[in-house]
Amino acid sequence: MERPRHQGMAKNTYMRWRLPLVCLLWEVAMIVLFGVFVRFSPEADAHWEEEKRKMNLTSDIENDFYFRYPSFQDVHVMIFVGFGFLMTFLKRYGFGAVGFNFLLAAFGIQWALLMQGWFHSFQNGKILIGVENLINADFCVGSVCVAFGAILGKTSPIQLLVMTLFQVTLFAVNEYILLNLLHVKDAGGSMTIHTFGAYFGLTVTRVLYRPNLEQSKDKEGSVYHSDLFAMIGTLYLWMYWPSFNSAISEHGDAQHRAAINTYCSLAACVLTTMAFSSMLQKKGKLDMVHIQNATLAGGVAVGTGAEMMLTPYGSLIVGFICGIVSTVGYVYLTPVLESRLHIQDTCGIHNLHGMPGLIGGIVGAITAAAATQDVYGKEGFIKAFDFTGSYKTRTPSVQGGFQAAGIVVSLLMAFAGGALVGAILKLPIWGDAADENCFEDDIYWEVPEDEESDVYHMHNPDKPASP
Amino acid sequence: MERPRHQGMAKNTYMRWRLPLVCLLWEVAMIVLFGVFVRFSPEADAHWEEEKRKMNLTSDIENDFYFRYPSFQDVHVMIFVGFGFLMTFLKRYGFGAVGFNFLLAAFGIQWALLMQGWFHSFQNGKILIGVENLINADFCVGSVCVAFGAILGKTSPIQLLVMTLFQVTLFAVNEYILLNLLHVKDAGGSMTIHTFGAYFGLTVTRVLYRPNLEQSKDKEGSVYHSDLFAMIGTLYLWMYWPSFNSAISEHGDAQHRAAINTYCSLAACVLTTMAFSSMLQKKGKLDMVHIQNATLAGGVAVGTGAEMMLTPYGSLIVGFICGIVSTVGYVYLTPVLESRLHIQDTCGIHNLHGMPGLIGGIVGAITAAAATQDVYGKEGFIKAFDFTGSYKTRTPSVQGGFQAAGIVVSLLMAFAGGALVGAILKLPIWGDAADENCFEDDIYWEVPEDEESDVYHMHNPDKPASP
Amino acid sequence: MERPRHQGMAKNTYMRWRLPLVCLLWEVAMIVLFGVFVRFSPEADAHWEEEKRKMNLTSDIENDFYFRYPSFQDVHVMIFVGFGFLMTFLKRYGFGAVGFNFLLAAFGIQWALLMQGWFHSFQNGKILIGVENLINADFCVGSVCVAFGAILGKTSPIQLLVMTLFQVTLFAVNEYILLNLLHVKDAGGSMTIHTFGAYFGLTVTRVLYRPNLEQSKDKEGSVYHSDLFAMIGTLYLWMYWPSFNSAISEHGDAQHRAAINTYCSLAACVLTTMAFSSMLQKKGKLDMVHIQNATLAGGVAVGTGAEMMLTPYGSLIVGFICGIVSTVGYVYLTPVLESRLHIQDTCGIHNLHGMPGLIGGIVGAITAAAATQDVYGKEGFIKAFDFTGSYKTRTPSVQGGFQAAGIVVSLLMAFAGGALVGAILKLPIWGDAADENCFEDDIYWEVPEDEESDVYHMHNPDKPASP
Repeated sequence: MERPRHQGMAKNTYMRWRLPLVCLLWEVAMIVLFGVFVRFSPEADAHWEEEKRKMNLTSDIENDFYFRYPSFQDVHVMIFVGFGFLMTFLKRYGFGAVGFNFLLAAFGIQWALLMQGWFHSFQNGKILIGVENLINADFCVGSVCVAFGAILGKTSPIQLLVMTLFQVTLFAVNEYILLNLLHVKDAGGSMTIHTFGAYFGLTVTRVLYRPNLEQSKDKEGSVYHSDLFAMIGTLYLWMYWPSFNSAISEHGDAQHRAAINTYCSLAACVLTTMAFSSMLQKKGKLDMVHIQNATLAGGVAVGTGAEMMLTPYGSLIVGFICGIVSTVGYVYLTPVLESRLHIQDTCGIHNLHGMPGLIGGIVGAITAAAATQDVYGKEGFIKAFDFTGSYKTRTPSVQGGFQAAGIVVSLLMAFAGGALVGAILKLPIWGDAADENCFEDDIYWEVPEDEESDVYHMHNPDKPASP
Repeated sequence: MERPRHQGMAKNTYMRWRLPLVCLLWEVAMIVLFGVFVRFSPEADAHWEEEKRKMNLTSDIENDFYFRYPSFQDVHVMIFVGFGFLMTFLKRYGFGAVGFNFLLAAFGIQWALLMQGWFHSFQNGKILIGVENLINADFCVGSVCVAFGAILGKTSPIQLLVMTLFQVTLFAVNEYILLNLLHVKDAGGSMTIHTFGAYFGLTVTRVLYRPNLEQSKDKEGSVYHSDLFAMIGTLYLWMYWPSFNSAISEHGDAQHRAAINTYCSLAACVLTTMAFSSMLQKKGKLDMVHIQNATLAGGVAVGTGAEMMLTPYGSLIVGFICGIVSTVGYVYLTPVLESRLHIQDTCGIHNLHGMPGLIGGIVGAITAAAATQDVYGKEGFIKAFDFTGSYKTRTPSVQGGFQAAGIVVSLLMAFAGGALVGAILKLPIWGDAADENCFEDDIYWEVPEDEESDVYHMHNPDKPASP
Repeated sequence: MERPRHQGMAKNTYMRWRLPLVCLLWEVAMIVLFGVFVRFSPEADAHWEEEKRKMNLTSDIENDFYFRYPSFQDVHVMIFVGFGFLMTFLKRYGFGAVGFNFLLAAFGIQWALLMQGWFHSFQNGKILIGVENLINADFCVGSVCVAFGAILGKTSPIQLLVMTLFQVTLFAVNEYILLNLLHVKDAGGSMTIHTFGAYFGLTVTRVLYRPNLEQSKDKEGSVYHSDLFAMIGTLYLWMYWPSFNSAISEHGDAQHRAAINTYCSLAACVLTTMAFSSMLQKKGKLDMVHIQNATLAGGVAVGTGAEMMLTPYGSLIVGFICGIVSTVGYVYLTPVLESRLHIQDTCGIHNLHGMPGLIGGIVGAITAAAATQDVYGKEGFIKAFDFTGSYKTRTPSVQGGFQAAGIVVSLLMAFAGGALVGAILKLPIWGDAADENCFEDDIYWEVPEDEESDVYHMHNPDKPASP
């Protein structure tokens, strides 16, 4: 490297002992905790035949596995390929995008099985897990993937693991408050996953503010093929989002409805994204950043309402609005957030998850408040909002109020948690890169040294590369 | 650009106001029409509990969602990733391939829900949608994606949206004639999707003939990595085609059988494609164009017959033939179509969808005509061809005749519709590119300016790129 | 080519008549054999309505299609996209990796339907196929894809087809011995697929040893984007592995349990892979080869035990160990295998499938031997190990012994079969490439001649490529 060395170069990004230590210790901890706590749910246990008789089920197809496994696999693809490849848009951070996402998600789902298990599936001292727990663990990690988008390219793998540990913990607490204490509906996680994940990540990146990040600006863009890799992520997120929002809804009509609403919202979102991407640019050309991200905002924004009677046209309206809000955010808000508020948001998660998540929470609150027995049917009404037991007398408008409270709680948890975790990640022991080495795989990965052009030339030795 | 400017350069490809206007107006129209017409089907509506009692269903698993949702998601992937990435083979049109496919499909599925809804799911003034409607909407858009293949790289996004509007409309009319008036079986759409889509697209590209397209010939090829991206599309189409052909078949054996037949046909098709790709080339080397496309012809060609008792060996024979027909088409027919008939078919859809679609229609007609109660069983026979109501007395040979009529109708609709739509697209108001700027993302997309080589060099500043 | 020509250059790699001949003849043979033998299983046959009554099924959802089709599609993706793209890591062998994998798998599934059909689904002179047969055929081909990994880049497509023919045959025999004669459980194929496939492939590559392969060493590495393409393969294998290990397990709890165990094992495996990848490298950087491969070892190693009561923490332990074993294998064992034993293992299948497969067999034997009626329940115990009929009195420890015997049989079949097939492939008639042309698509594929850089320069004619 001929370039002058900045003070940042002194940073120690050597991972050899630190990263293995964290990975191995934490995995051992997982094994011990799983050994003590985690067992199969009755539907996955070999005693299932007895259980079937107890539950009066006549067929194996009634096993929850067959209701949810296809959706689970779609969600699984969204977390690992969807988020992983969406973030490969940077020209030289593809390994980090896919690889670190892989690492944090693989750890996160284990820790989420435990955290969510203690809160929701704890019976007689054991966490009983089935396919729904796997989906919920993936969901929880989804919020970490969202936050990862804000700090992409600026953190070490150890920082990401530390953030995952804390964020999964806080996610589970927040989720418990919303779902159990406030009795809020949020099947697709507009509040618990997206709002919480986004504002958590934005707070973390604010605390980790790098004033000299412009030293890496040349690497903070895409190249032609990295934009195509990112589109793999975009499309898998977009296509499977109906599965995401319906994965843990009630069996039957609720799952069915959630998928349809999400499908509609996403379709509308693509058109307004394209419209505003072209409109907000002098030359009228489309911008891949918008297509890769803002087209997904419609899925985020029906995360709460999709399983309700939002109706297809209601979903179109939500998608319509979110495509606009998100694209406008990329063009006007992201630069302001960086220059004024010192929030460096690599993937623009504020536009894709933050604002649409808030809209999703509000849409959910309004849809709940507007619910009537006429629209839902008597049984459907009770089933949709689980107005049973101590919630038997709750009215739609009260439910709407609690839904709104859920947004506020998620935001507060995100800000407080993000500030705490940001402070921890600022400690100079985690091996993050210097400002000039951000967005660069070379720091943490063995990058193949051969250039592609070498190979091309091999075939045409007489043909120089320059014109 | 130092190169001499051709008269074509004067073409106005500025999208800034036109594209947003079309997108926004049309999306608003969708919202209004959905608001007036579209509601949930009983299986997706919150009144489902009541419906369940009415239909005597004992379990939520009987909801159509669980019969069809996994297939729906596979079809969804085929439309957006399959078709989208299949068309990324061009060296500098990857954004357009994936992005415009995304745009037209997202609009098309909404319009298809309406058009097909009016024809097939209209009850008491409302279109009632469930998962089967989503699949059908994807199918309808599939025929637009096919047509897009013929004009790939030569049209503006507005032209694509206009074509989608008309083609979806015509598709729905054609489908209504075939399925309802002729009472034809076509679950995988050999006729309605592939034959119609291909000859529609070929007629459009004929009308839009560009005599000076050779000015863009240098961009009408692939590079190494663009061919790999295209293989992502190919493989997802290939793998999920069994889901495509079985997605809307009758519950039970018909879905099961359609998947098996398609699986067999596709497997055979790969071998004959490879054989002829090597055989028809002097050096005996395999050509990626054939592997990317002709391997799929077997799926197209069992689109009508797959749910019938075509049998596995019958499917192998169909696949065997189609791999040959399609590959031979790429080598000998496509150049002739261009030079003699002035049909410029960018992706060779005539070889992948046109001829195999016709074969599929014929195979379906023969299979139907050959059906016997012995082979199908008494109940199976009636169920397979829906010989109930006013069709109670129809015989297999008559059914075969109507199937054949379905091919002719589809062709006529394609030619007439394509001519009409081609004429509309020829109007000089849609912003298509000059001949020398075809197959080039730069016209409609912000393309990253940095070269990859810059980044590579950063790591080896002393190493020049030229040998 | 200016480079001096080695004697190897004389090798005749001309495929024009040989490859088509093999493909066409074999496909015709498939058609004839399918015509004679293959029919639909009752659940895919049009007589299904009658069958339903016979089996006392009240709903179409009881058709095996709905129990297994989603898993089938996941497995299908693993074979074609998973294995195909995993092997695209080589800088100039992407076409061969994806394309030849496509070819051999498409042939292999047909031959596997026959071979496995004769052994397992043969009734009254006919092989009756349903969705479970399709899964099993994909499984069988999976073992060929494993073996392909060892000889990647060094064999002609004809050699691959010949190997597939023999390996599928031997696979079916070995599977019959294990499942039917030894009455061994191996739902995810640790023994039948991975152990057999890996040691078969390693024996073949040993027989085909190329002492002068270092002449191609410059092409035996990756470039930046080829590593990202490979990650597509890795992630799809990783995400869908729970479907793989559960795809043919018993309906209900066994499928459910197998998916959960595999999910856990794979998650743990990622962390130990990352830990050891960093630890075993002086600079402490992560190596893409490990991330692409060793992260999958956890799936291989629960292939036998996943459907048993291995428990989630048991699975974590297996994944923990296998991430380490596999990564250590890549760093220390692979070079030794090449230098000492002359085993040139392109993809390191010994580390990903060989050792983890053996571990999987052992884990399965131990888990079976440790089974008690207490843990499984009385019915569950019998169902899990199929202790019925002539196996009514078999005890867990005896079962464990037979499981262990299954490992030995698989190894012996692999070595003997690999030696035989290797000897056949060594005949100088199959058109394999010279040592200096290995890992090079140019030999068997039309490779696009245009360089990417040409295109880039087109946009910036004044900007030279060198700095």
